[in-house]
Formats: sequence, structure tokens, C-alpha cells
Amino acid sequence: MAFNQILKEIKKVFSKISEKEIGIFVYEVKQAKRVYVVGAGRSGLVAKNLAMRLVRLEKETYIVHETVNPKMKSGDLLVAISGSGETNDVLDAVKISRMMGTRILTLTANKNSSIIKISHEVIIIPAQIPVRLGNHYHLRELIGVPERSATKSLFELSALIFLEVAVSRM
Amino acid sequence: MAFNQILKEIKKVFSKISEKEIGIFVYEVKQAKRVYVVGAGRSGLVAKNLAMRLVRLEKETYIVHETVNPKMKSGDLLVAISGSGETNDVLDAVKISRMMGTRILTLTANKNSSIIKISHEVIIIPAQIPVRLGNHYHLRELIGVPERSATKSLFELSALIFLEVAVSRM
Amino acid sequence: MAFNQILKEIKKVFSKISEKEIGIFVYEVKQAKRVYVVGAGRSGLVAKNLAMRLVRLEKETYIVHETVNPKMKSGDLLVAISGSGETNDVLDAVKISRMMGTRILTLTANKNSSIIKISHEVIIIPAQIPVRLGNHYHLRELIGVPERSATKSLFELSALIFLEVAVSRM
Amino acid sequence: MAFNQILKEIKKVFSKISEKEIGIFVYEVKQAKRVYVVGAGRSGLVAKNLAMRLVRLEKETYIVHETVNPKMKSGDLLVAISGSGETNDVLDAVKISRMMGTRILTLTANKNSSIIKISHEVIIIPAQIPVRLGNHYHLRELIGVPERSATKSLFELSALIFLEVAVSRM
Repeated sequence: MAFNQILKEIKKVFSKISEKEIGIFVYEVKQAKRVYVVGAGRSGLVAKNLAMRLVRLEKETYIVHETVNPKMKSGDLLVAISGSGETNDVLDAVKISRMMGTRILTLTANKNSSIIKISHEVIIIPAQIPVRLGNHYHLRELIGVPERSATKSLFELSALIFLEVAVSRM
Repeated sequence: MAFNQILKEIKKVFSKISEKEIGIFVYEVKQAKRVYVVGAGRSGLVAKNLAMRLVRLEKETYIVHETVNPKMKSGDLLVAISGSGETNDVLDAVKISRMMGTRILTLTANKNSSIIKISHEVIIIPAQIPVRLGNHYHLRELIGVPERSATKSLFELSALIFLEVAVSRM
Repeated sequence: MAFNQILKEIKKVFSKISEKEIGIFVYEVKQAKRVYVVGAGRSGLVAKNLAMRLVRLEKETYIVHETVNPKMKSGDLLVAISGSGETNDVLDAVKISRMMGTRILTLTANKNSSIIKISHEVIIIPAQIPVRLGNHYHLRELIGVPERSATKSLFELSALIFLEVAVSRM
Repeated sequence: MAFNQILKEIKKVFSKISEKEIGIFVYEVKQAKRVYVVGAGRSGLVAKNLAMRLVRLEKETYIVHETVNPKMKSGDLLVAISGSGETNDVLDAVKISRMMGTRILTLTANKNSSIIKISHEVIIIPAQIPVRLGNHYHLRELIGVPERSATKSLFELSALIFLEVAVSRM
């Protein structure tokens, strides 16, 4: 059957994620006065999906790169989503957050990424690490970077499901 | 384990979707000169994810409700995503598409919805039908409509996975 | 000279706007706990420009129709921008705001519009009233509605300049 | 009167712009197979306003940084809008456009800017040059960069009026 392969891959990813990771997420979000989310490309859609869920729970939530955003403060939380952990747009936001005293919780597939070193908490989504596509993530479609296969979207799909489950615990 | 419930639900949804549905999707998109996608709220994120994938395959693709869009023509395809099949913003776009002679392919959970009657092709994603939340979908967060549980996000998650698999066949 | 005509028209508009209108705007924004802005099409860009200005003054500001927004409360202010005063997307937001107990300040060119009847304060920008283009403002480019001339953009240009001056008084 | 100062400043800007500049704009856009527009912050709103106008004239137009965009080709035109001519987000898009063989028409207030050296055509909007606000334009509100006064918005206001007049000549 057509969908079995991808469902099996997703199941394998979650076999390596535990209740503890949900606990970290719920704790950090509950502690935060306000939540910012950030992601690039399709991870950006996962970030927006999270923001939509949190706003309905009446959590004050902002999406980095939208038209306007308030100044960050200490006591805020940034949830950063990046498969490679090297996407420049996301790294820039994380660096600025550190400077502003904001706490950072990162979801990534890459245990050895730059983003991990500057995050306070990390949740590893053990999917295949997406290939890093250069410095200008948000401009790369102007150049026409070739597309990945469905199993290569494992990080985004798994991160989305993880966050759905984690938010429904709140 | 925390994630088993949602994975089991997703698996159940896909047990009722066949290769034929993938075939319909691939055929319609391949036939189309240009593709428009539309969805509201979280289904809108699923629509954007699809658009990102199609653009990388160098398919001319547009997202309804973005800042600018070209005039629709006959020969174009609208992919509409709506769990309830009753969301006004999406229905409005579908009606206008019909008027412009654009072909319509709909993904919905609701076999008895209004959208089905005005679509050329329908792919049923047999998840629980989300409750319809009134006429002003894009304004409902101003009112503060309460959030659904994770298993109630089954339609969006399943539609996303369906589209990932279908696009990777192209 | 090419630009004289439009500059003369803008000057004529402002000859009929007084200091009092600036006072109303500044008072309402200062009173408000949080500000929401709304506009459709090019008036939507004027609304976003206002939001960018207010956020820099550290006013908590939200743009209706962005990905997420918090629930409205009494004590908030909605600034609605609509040349015709009849644009459905804007009227819908104004009606919901009334329901939520939010105060409404409207900028419009049309003294006899529906929006005036449901606004608490109105600032008339006495430019030519743009023709109302039907119910589905945000979908009308899919149909290909023909474009207006530059002098017919007088409302948006004048509203923008009005708001720039008014904000710089704060 | 409150608005005289800003209107006088705008008039002064246009006293130094000639018919020739309109001619350059109209020629470049007419020659182009497709038009891309780019700008950051409030200049980004000016770019979007231009895109809305061009789409109505049935010109195929895209906005850099929107969710999806087709690959650039030679024969396309990028209209770049940057007061300082040094905004990184805009410079990145201009560099990529050059690489793709796309023609570049820039509107800027800064005769000595980096963007001028890599543009094919330049229209100087002789307003006061906005202070450059560092590398992360789209993140700067997270830091809370202080706001400019109304007369300091001269570049955006003048660029908007220039483009309104120029498009209405097409």
C-alpha cells in the first residue's frame, strides 16, 4: 500500500522520542510569559501551526517574520524549528533572542548543529537530517533548488505530530 | 506510549484511502496548466505546504488569499482543502473558480458537504469531520473559539501526509 | 509636470482635514490597551504601515487576517480603513469587534457608508469614494477586476499620509 | 496647518524627479516578461502596492519573500525598493537576481549605495536617506529599534506616489 512506507518511517521516529520530551515542551511553554515561534520554509508552516494552537489556548504567541512583532523580553520563550539546525534565518532569530534574554527551545533532527549550542533546551526529532541548502533559505526558490522525496519530509511531519500531541497535553 | 494513539488513528484513516486517490491527484495536477491552492486556518497551512512542493517541481502554483494572484483561466486547477467542506472562505473561492472555468479538486472529510457538489473531483480523507465554526473562519480567533484535541487534528495531518506521498509520485 | 496633478489632489484632500482629526486619532490610540488594525487590498497595506509604526512606539498592535491574533477584549481599539466603507472583509471585522466590546475608529472616504453606523469615531478622508467592488474583495483579483487610475488612489495615499503625521505626534 | 510640512517636503522631492524617470520605469516593466518586486519593512509595503497595481494590468508579478515564487529567468525584471540601498534582505535578492540573469531596476534615496552598483537601472528618490539599521532588517523589531518621525518617512511616501503615477501611465 502506498502510505505504509511513510507511516512506518514516522512510527520509527517516534519510537525514539519519549514522554520526557513532551514534558520539556509543556514545562517551557507553561513557564513562558509569551511565546515566539520561528521556522523557515516548510518548518515555518509547522511553527505557524503551533502558534495557531497556542493562541487558542489563550497563550500570547507571536510568529517571527510576520508583519509586526513586539520587542522580546526576558521571560519569553522562542520555539525554533529547524531540521538541519543550520538555517540562517532561524539561527539569526535565535541569536537575537539570546541577546534579548529570551529562553530558547529548539526542535531539530541534527544532534551536531550550530543551533543546539545556543539553545537552552533541545528536542531531537530523529528523522534523516535534511540537506542544508545554503545561506538564503527564503530566496532559494528564486534559484530553483530541486525538491526532496516524501520520506525526506520526515522531520517536518514528525515535528508537526509531536507538537500536536504535546499541545493537547496542555 | 504517548504518540501511539494518534499514529493508530492516522493509520486507520489511510486504510480507507487507496492508490486510486493518488492517481486522481497526480492526473489532475499534471493536466493543469497552473495550480491554485486554497484552505482556511490550519488547512491553509496544508495548502501552502502543497504549493511549496509543487513550485519546486516547477509547476506554476498560486495560493489564494496571498497578496497578489493572477486571474484564473480555464485549464487551471484549484486544489481546495476543507475538513468540514463548509468553510465560507474556501467555498467562496471554489464558487469563483467554477465561474472562471477552473477545474476543482477537493480534499475533505465530509461526504455530505456543500463543497462536494461544486467540485469536479473529490478525495475523501475519512477523518472525523471537524465541527464547522461559523461563517467568519478567518476572524474566529478574534472571538476566541476553543481549541480541539490532537486526534481532532486528524484531517489536517492526514491530508498533509496524503499530499506528501502524492506529490512524491510526480 | 507629471506629479503636480496628484500632489494638488492630495493637498485638496488635506485642506478639508483639521487638527481635530489628529487629536481624535491620538486620543483613541493612547486610551487603548491594545490596537488592532484592519483593511482590505491596498487599504490593508495602509493598515500594516500603521501597525509597523505603532509597534515601534511599543504599542501592543495586531493586524486582523494575519496568521494568529489574540482574542479581542473591551479596552482594545480597532482602527478600520476602508475607502468605500462597504468592504465586506472589513465590515465583518468591525461587527465582531462591536460584539467583543472593542472600540472602533474608522478612516473612510464615504460619509454615507455602512461602516460609519457601527463605528465609535470616524475620520473622513475626503477623497473620491472608490467604487465598491462586490462582496469578495480578497478574491476579486482571481476574476481580474480592472485597475483604477492614480488619482483614484487618493484615498489610500491620503490615509497613509494622515496616519504618518498623526503617529509622529504621539 | 498640520499637514503642510510633509506635503511641502514631498513636493520638494518631486521637483527633482523628471518625466525621464517615469519613462525608464514604464519601459523596463513593459519589456519584462515577468516582474518580481522586493522591499523590506515599509518599503516592502510599497513593493506590494506596486505588485497589486501590476497584477490588475495583467502583468505577471511576484513578490519576493511571499510563500512561493517561481524560479527567476533571464527576461524577468526585479524592482527593488530600498531607501538606504544597503538593506541586506534586499541586497541578497538583487545579488541572486543578477546570478539568474534577471534585469534590476532600483528605487533608492542613496546615490552612493551598494545596491546601485549591481542594478541595471536606478531611479533616485531624493528624500533624506534613512539610517541603515543593521543586518537583520526583518528581525529588528524583536530588538525594538526606535521609530523615525513623519518627515523621515519621505522616501517610502515619495516612492509610493512615484510608482502610482508611473503605473497609471501604462
